[in-house]
Parts: sequence; C-alpha cells; structure tokens
Amino acid sequence: MNIGIIGDGQLGRMLALAGYPLGFHFGFLGQKDSPSGALGKVFSTIEELDAFADVITYESENTSLELIRELKTPLYPPQIALQTTQNRRLEKELFGELGIPCARFAIATTIEELRSAVAEIGTPAIIKTTTEGYDGKGQYTLKNANEIETAWQQLGGRELIVEAFVNFDYEVSAIATYGAQEVRYYPLTQNTHQEGILQTSEILENDDALFNEAQSYIDKIATAFDYRGTLTVEFFVKNGKLIANEIAPRVHNSGHWTIEGAGCSQFANHIRAITGLPLGLSDATYQHIMMHNIIGELPNTQEVLHNVNAHLHLYDKSPRPGRKLGHITICY
Amino acid sequence: MNIGIIGDGQLGRMLALAGYPLGFHFGFLGQKDSPSGALGKVFSTIEELDAFADVITYESENTSLELIRELKTPLYPPQIALQTTQNRRLEKELFGELGIPCARFAIATTIEELRSAVAEIGTPAIIKTTTEGYDGKGQYTLKNANEIETAWQQLGGRELIVEAFVNFDYEVSAIATYGAQEVRYYPLTQNTHQEGILQTSEILENDDALFNEAQSYIDKIATAFDYRGTLTVEFFVKNGKLIANEIAPRVHNSGHWTIEGAGCSQFANHIRAITGLPLGLSDATYQHIMMHNIIGELPNTQEVLHNVNAHLHLYDKSPRPGRKLGHITICY
Repeated sequence: MNIGIIGDGQLGRMLALAGYPLGFHFGFLGQKDSPSGALGKVFSTIEELDAFADVITYESENTSLELIRELKTPLYPPQIALQTTQNRRLEKELFGELGIPCARFAIATTIEELRSAVAEIGTPAIIKTTTEGYDGKGQYTLKNANEIETAWQQLGGRELIVEAFVNFDYEVSAIATYGAQEVRYYPLTQNTHQEGILQTSEILENDDALFNEAQSYIDKIATAFDYRGTLTVEFFVKNGKLIANEIAPRVHNSGHWTIEGAGCSQFANHIRAITGLPLGLSDATYQHIMMHNIIGELPNTQEVLHNVNAHLHLYDKSPRPGRKLGHITICY
Repeated sequence: MNIGIIGDGQLGRMLALAGYPLGFHFGFLGQKDSPSGALGKVFSTIEELDAFADVITYESENTSLELIRELKTPLYPPQIALQTTQNRRLEKELFGELGIPCARFAIATTIEELRSAVAEIGTPAIIKTTTEGYDGKGQYTLKNANEIETAWQQLGGRELIVEAFVNFDYEVSAIATYGAQEVRYYPLTQNTHQEGILQTSEILENDDALFNEAQSYIDKIATAFDYRGTLTVEFFVKNGKLIANEIAPRVHNSGHWTIEGAGCSQFANHIRAITGLPLGLSDATYQHIMMHNIIGELPNTQEVLHNVNAHLHLYDKSPRPGRKLGHITICY
C-alpha cells in the first residue's frame, strides 16, 4: 500500500519510519532536500501524490483546503478536522458547541473591533491571527490596552481573535488514536513552552480525574469530526480542571516520547488507523518518560548518548534560531 | 554522516530504519527494487558506495573479500571477522584456538577424504561446504556411511567439512554489540529451526550460568577479531553447557526482538558502534518476548495485529517458499 503525506518535515519523517515495518511505501509532497526526502518518493504536485497514493494524510493543520479539494484518494484525518483546526475562531466555536471549557474570546477584523474586543475580554489578553499561526508565530501578548496599536501593526489586516489570558497552573496534551474499530488513549503529558515553542513533555503521574476529563473532551471532538487517525488536544490546567487551548488533527510534538515509551507509537498508530489496521497499545512502558526538544542548535551527539536512558532523534535540518532540529527522549 | 551498506536485504533495511533517527544517511550496494531500496541511495558498484560513505558495513558474512579489498572507507566489522566466518573450517579452527567447545570435525576435498572424514567423525554427521552455505543450504545430514556418494553428488567438488552430529537439548544465540568504549550483551535467546531456517527466538529466563559462559566465549571471539559492531554466536546447549555452532559478524535474525524488546536494538547499537557513538541499553524491557519468522507466505496483517502485543515487520519481499518475508515480535 502506498501512503501519501502532504508535507516533508519531521512528522512525515517519523510517520514513514513507523510505517515501513508494516510494508508500506511512502511518498511526500515537498522537496527532496527535506527531513522526509530520503525516506520515500518526493512529488512536487498534489496530482502526482494523488496518483501515487492509496491513502493520503497530512503533517500540518495549515494544509490548504484548496490543495486537497480535488483529491481522488481517501484523506485521513477528514477534511472537516483540517477546516476547523486551521481557524482559531471555528475551533473555539466548536469547543463552545461541545461544552468544552476554553478561554473567553472575541473576534476582530478592524482596529475598532480590536479595541472593543479587548474592552470585552480585558487585559492581559492574547491576540492571534485566526489562521496560520504556529509555534508562537502570529501571536501578540497584550499586557494593557495601550499596546493595541502595536499589536494591530504586527498582526492586523487579517481576522484576529482576542483570547482572555489564562493564568494556568500548567499545560497538558491529550493524544489519542482513532482507528477503524477502537481508540487508544496515550497518557497525558505535561508540557513546557518557551516563546510559544514546546520545550519539554513529561508523562503525568497517574491522575485519573484529569485523564478521564481529557478523554471525554477528546472523544467529543473526535465524534464531531468523525475522526480517523491520531488526534491531539492541548489544555491548560487550572485548579485541577482542563481548559482547552488548541486542537491538532495529527501526531504531535508532545507525543514524540511514544516512539520509545509506548507499546505502539502515535506515528505507528496513525499509520495503522488510516490504513484500517487494528491499533497497538498506548500505555507507557516506562515509569518516567521525558522529551526535550532540540531547538536552534545541534547538541553534541556523544554527550547526549552518554546518558544510557537517552534516545536521540535528529530531523536532518540545518540549524537556525527557533527551529526544531530534533528531540531527546529519556526513559527509565 | 553517510553509512554505506553492502547488501540490500532486510538487515540493511532495519539498520537504516534504526539509523535515520540519529541523523545519518544511507546508501546500499544492491538494487532499487529490494527491501532496502526505498530507504536510501542505491549503488550498483562498490566504487560508488565507497565514494558515498563515511563508514561501510555489510549484511552478510558471505560478502566477497575481493569486493572489499580496495575500499578507502573504514569497514566495520573488520575484514578478519568476515574472512573467518565465511569459512566453516577457519571458524572451527578459531573455536579450537580460543578453547571454545564445538562439534568434532574433519575436512575433505575429495570423495576419498570424505570417506575417511566420515570414518573419523562417525555417523550421524552433518556435511557442509566450508563456504557460502546459509539457512540450511549447502548442507547434507548423513545418517550412515551408505549415503556418502549421494552427499558427494550434491555438495562435492568444493572443500567440505564433516561435523559430528550434536544431539543437543536446545539452541541459543548470544548477541553483543562492541562499541568504541563499551560492550552491551543482549539476553540469550532460545531458537528453533526448521529445515535449517530459523523459525522462532524467545528470550531465555534468567540463566546466569549459561549467560556468563556465552559472554566469556563471545568476548574471546570479539577480542580475536578486534571487533566493532554487533556480533552473534549460535550455540547448541547440551547438559547445560554450550557448544559453539556458528559465528555471524553482524546483526542476526535471532536478535530482531530487540527492536521492541530492548532499550536499544541490535540495529541501533550496530550503527552507534560503527560510528563511534556510545551504546544504548541491551536489557530486555518486557518479561516475555518471542519472535516468529514469516517464511514463504505473507500472513493476514489484520489477524496478526489483532494481538495487541504483536509487532509486525514486513521486508517488502515477494513470497517464495522458504523465503524470509518478515517477522512478528510478541512482547508482554
């Protein structure tokens, strides 16, 4: 079976590495000189990918809807998941419809609307473009109303969302894979970010209440999307309760620990789900598991691997400030 | 770093899958339409591989010495390991020199020598070509002296070795990786064969005496070869003692369980060893681990994966009787 991936980054790379053992072939829409380029065929047009593939998936919620409109090949996760999650307004509206707590928000397309949105939500607030932001890009943290001009200069001219600042205790991700027959829920991870970029993810000690709450929310979202594949929801935790932040209709950086730390990784289960195969176990196979992102600069491989509990993953990307170049998972 | 692999079969495929996460690139001497073909560059001459690679390794002890004679790139495991293990006579002589117990044997190059070799060793005996046999090929099990003609017709015209038949209790493999600084010993596996082809490998319950004996023997062999990389020795076990059968200077089918069942697989550790990196942990991470080879016919993937403890590996080979097409590892 041929699997087509829209994108050629590290997620596609790790999907392919997880899928080859099942005998599948991979093709990527992207460039030969990319993290995925050595691991399959590389196509420069969606038509070529469509002709190659028996099933198509994508790396990013920012995949253009225009691009996938004419696909003849089945696409998983379904288009509705992509459509909703690439727009922060639609995403927040979905949380509302499903009764999932999230930060208060207001929408603005002009500076006047931005002023009244900020007046409504209060400060501090986060102003984001409703589309195309990721890893902290397309965001402005508004400390007080005096900064509205500056924020508008940086982000304005597009639809903006003003979100109430959540003074959270910590952040977690819920990741689950929805297969043809069954669902596998991975343990929650506690995440730390710096300048909007994920730095570390650590599996949470057994917190059944939080896990059950997360499971009920992610299931509601999956049902709304008639979902197939790996799904991620990022939450804030405040006073022991979850506040939904973002949905990613894909494998997620906070789930990279599953490669070594779960019976079947988020990547392997995504591949199994989109090809209709039974899913593997998602329980953690070590008691302590922590993932550290490698950002901007490459580490000394010798030093990293001197820790016998360390597993190194490099994405074959050249160093650049703020760029995710790899990750290290520590399991014991 | 570019890693060159002489060969394009499933071992090269699994080496590449284990090596990509470390950021390495792979090239194979072989064919595009092969188990390894999709996972790197494919070269048709050793000169091209030599030009591409920063370090070269091989998949098979039957790699021609002629082929590697002119290499400019460092080769691991070292040539002496290849030279010895591709000749059953040299291999048996090494066991003798190192004081490692093995079956009694005699050499024959003519039918007359074969008769006196059989007279010396007795029957039943195994007659093998000293070079190029694998998976039970190039072997004849001689029940009594009347069959000498038939055996000669099948195998004669080349140097033969007559080995005393060992009425063993069971068979085990010892696998260890020799790195630049340290050695990692994997748990012993108990193996079953059918018609000379490995069928199953199961990790042995803690048998310290046997493990220590195996460790001392494999260390002697590694020292003799000034070894670097993953090394395998197959033993017979009789009355709780080891009798050496064969050395493989490479990752081995009986170690495929290490992909899911060890902290760092035989493949990942081989790659780390030949690139001078520290080695990862070789302990089993599950209590029960068994590997089943998929031979001749492809299984129903759905059925295999309905067992949540099963991990399926297919090698992208077309079915043919007696051909190794993949393996299934069960861990719990």
